[in-house]
Amino acid sequence: MSLDAVLAQIDANLPAATDRLLDLLRIKSISTDPAFKQECQAAADWLVADLQSMGVDAQKRETPGHPMVVGHVGPETGKPHLLFYGHYDVQPVDPLHLWDRDPFDPAIEETPAGTVIRGRGAADDKGQLMTFVEAFRAWKEVTGEWPCRITFFFEGEEESGSPSLVPFMKEHADELRADFAMICDTGMFQSRTPAITTMLRGLLGEELTITGPSKDLHSGMFGGIAINPIRVLSRIIASLHDESGRITVPGFYDGVPELSDELEAQWQGLAFDHAGFLADVGLSHPAGEQDRTPLEMIWSRPTCEVNGIGGGYQGDGFKTVLPSEASAKISFRLVGDQDPWEIRKNFRAMVEGMLPPDCSVEWTDHGTGRASGTPADDPAFARALAALTEEWQIPAAYIGCGGSIPIAGYFDSILGTTPVLIGFGRDDDQIHSPNEKYDMESFHKGIRSWARILDAIR
Amino acid sequence: MSLDAVLAQIDANLPAATDRLLDLLRIKSISTDPAFKQECQAAADWLVADLQSMGVDAQKRETPGHPMVVGHVGPETGKPHLLFYGHYDVQPVDPLHLWDRDPFDPAIEETPAGTVIRGRGAADDKGQLMTFVEAFRAWKEVTGEWPCRITFFFEGEEESGSPSLVPFMKEHADELRADFAMICDTGMFQSRTPAITTMLRGLLGEELTITGPSKDLHSGMFGGIAINPIRVLSRIIASLHDESGRITVPGFYDGVPELSDELEAQWQGLAFDHAGFLADVGLSHPAGEQDRTPLEMIWSRPTCEVNGIGGGYQGDGFKTVLPSEASAKISFRLVGDQDPWEIRKNFRAMVEGMLPPDCSVEWTDHGTGRASGTPADDPAFARALAALTEEWQIPAAYIGCGGSIPIAGYFDSILGTTPVLIGFGRDDDQIHSPNEKYDMESFHKGIRSWARILDAIR
Repeated sequence: MSLDAVLAQIDANLPAATDRLLDLLRIKSISTDPAFKQECQAAADWLVADLQSMGVDAQKRETPGHPMVVGHVGPETGKPHLLFYGHYDVQPVDPLHLWDRDPFDPAIEETPAGTVIRGRGAADDKGQLMTFVEAFRAWKEVTGEWPCRITFFFEGEEESGSPSLVPFMKEHADELRADFAMICDTGMFQSRTPAITTMLRGLLGEELTITGPSKDLHSGMFGGIAINPIRVLSRIIASLHDESGRITVPGFYDGVPELSDELEAQWQGLAFDHAGFLADVGLSHPAGEQDRTPLEMIWSRPTCEVNGIGGGYQGDGFKTVLPSEASAKISFRLVGDQDPWEIRKNFRAMVEGMLPPDCSVEWTDHGTGRASGTPADDPAFARALAALTEEWQIPAAYIGCGGSIPIAGYFDSILGTTPVLIGFGRDDDQIHSPNEKYDMESFHKGIRSWARILDAIR
Repeated sequence: MSLDAVLAQIDANLPAATDRLLDLLRIKSISTDPAFKQECQAAADWLVADLQSMGVDAQKRETPGHPMVVGHVGPETGKPHLLFYGHYDVQPVDPLHLWDRDPFDPAIEETPAGTVIRGRGAADDKGQLMTFVEAFRAWKEVTGEWPCRITFFFEGEEESGSPSLVPFMKEHADELRADFAMICDTGMFQSRTPAITTMLRGLLGEELTITGPSKDLHSGMFGGIAINPIRVLSRIIASLHDESGRITVPGFYDGVPELSDELEAQWQGLAFDHAGFLADVGLSHPAGEQDRTPLEMIWSRPTCEVNGIGGGYQGDGFKTVLPSEASAKISFRLVGDQDPWEIRKNFRAMVEGMLPPDCSVEWTDHGTGRASGTPADDPAFARALAALTEEWQIPAAYIGCGGSIPIAGYFDSILGTTPVLIGFGRDDDQIHSPNEKYDMESFHKGIRSWARILDAIR
């Protein structure tokens, strides 16, 4: 076959491919909010239908949560066997008033920086997921056959901790095991440097609710004598970091590795523009551990962040209430061999040890995932890196990622399949935020990149 | 005239008086929420019409906020001139799911502790306000005349900081000046000991919003390098009290008096059941300044409480957001000669001094009011105390009040009118909380108490 013919077909297909993506973006598949359960089903149905239209043997597979989409194609015993993973669920859209358009009425917009696809999920992960679907479509249209044995595997719970994923992978390990799991949920380096992500932080999500008085009280009648759970919670949160930015949970740094000399040199070569990275979001000072470089802070150091807090009266005006309870959602990003279950145990014990008399705490578990790294010594990595360099005409790099993609670790530990993390997101995509977008260039060159990678490693 | 005849008329009027109160309670006059502006107007209209039906020259008087109701009756130059103050606005009703009935569909309920009037505002302050309205109604019906020169003065912004009150009092000082301002917005001591409140805490309400990044961020991509405003806010709140429970705002204790030996002895005589007071709300430990008695904590010591906090994602599930902003509502209860404006200045400077780089703070002023005490040496106080003792058959007491009724201080400082704080609320009325109630005994004996007091001091 001719790679050039496939690339030309991709170029010709772009308007139709864009329309397909817009269709998928209109589906409100917010996985964390039970109100959108049917929309998650609809997104899965849409993907099954699209894969079937290409001749893939695709099915929706129910789980206790949102369904998986699994599709197989190509020779039963072909080599290599490539699995492609993506997720069709998206983040919630609040605060809605900060969006410039309806997040589920996506559109192509011309901006000073180029053409973008605007809408919730455009980058994370529907746009990325469709890059490889469209690459296969063009390949099939041009050659009439598949490049190798392929499995499509899409989930709908990535944004809510993937509770069904591990059980499903364990139950269907023989079906899903492949040589490489291509995961398209990461970004490029500083917007236009193509990259393979070989280091991913893990995640521990915790929610705690502190209860003091048995009901909301009048702060005049009870202020000064009744314990205030907001104050208790604030004191706990304030104690989670010391003055140098280190996290104070006992044993937290067990298993945190120092950077290898090799990677340290490579990262210094990337000349990360941390001033620009921060300036884009209105900041000027790296606020983490003060003895670490900015790239270490976001790629290879663990963190503890409060993702939400609430208690008492938050409406307009003022209410002199002394509330019965206050709660917070807290996440830990993990690296190296940090053990999320051990950290959870130590964190909970630490909080419980800080509770004053009359206070209690209730916990909600929001998922755990170990950090993961991928062994970039397989020759397929070097060939993929070269294909990316060829498409983008910029030297591709091995990088880390601050975000957590626990599935990368699961492929390795459960299936023995090597994860390969290639994505085309950019720092300013505003994923998880209002006005999420995906650059048309990322979408178009992303599709072309997959065709080149397939040609290089099949 | 015969006091006994007026008391008998009050007894006969009770069913109709209760129906009138239920009518008033159905009006959703939540002053702090702009959505209820028309309901506040409706409550004022209802009161004007009720006063006019008794022959009072009553009018609704507009302000920049919710209207005042002012009514005059009796001889122009009569002595004494008594002003009666109450407020027709109520607190918000959230969390609504904790109410056992619609807060604005009030009802008479039989409980193990007696008959109660249940609904938002039953005790604070519509039920209390109607005690003296009903006392006058009975008096007029029996005698055909008024006991003395009387001014009714009702506001609709007490639960939102009374922003229009001081300007209105200043503009209409000659009209409102009286010998005594009877304020019915306080409670009895330990439920059934009638009381005159002679010591009231002041209030300073502040709201602050801390902004870090210019938009919500992904805590994976930015966690560890971007400043988190929830953490900044928590650290500020955690620093507002030291380990002993003292407030750390510089100069905060300037003007805080120690209790006089006389009042200390009187309060020890009251044998406050602080264990029961706390146990009613699920607590067992006085949580304030550890070197103070429980009655001091709630009546004569200043406090700092967080009434609300919010930031980031608070919905179901989890969202790995690093939010742009976090906010809190904080109130200070003030005593003695503490200066709310000086404390505001010092508090804001303290917070601004704690802000890390890249963070800013915005302030919203939610009102100020100095603490106030009333000179209980006027013989009218002793006569009112005796009238209360006679009605309740329990020795009445001079007490403090943890809540703030800034208007008491305004009557003194703006009009030179002595405030007299008499009310019939109980500790378990759940004002500002779900399931607010007012005991039928408080309503009935409250009306009778006013008739006795009028007879004693006119």
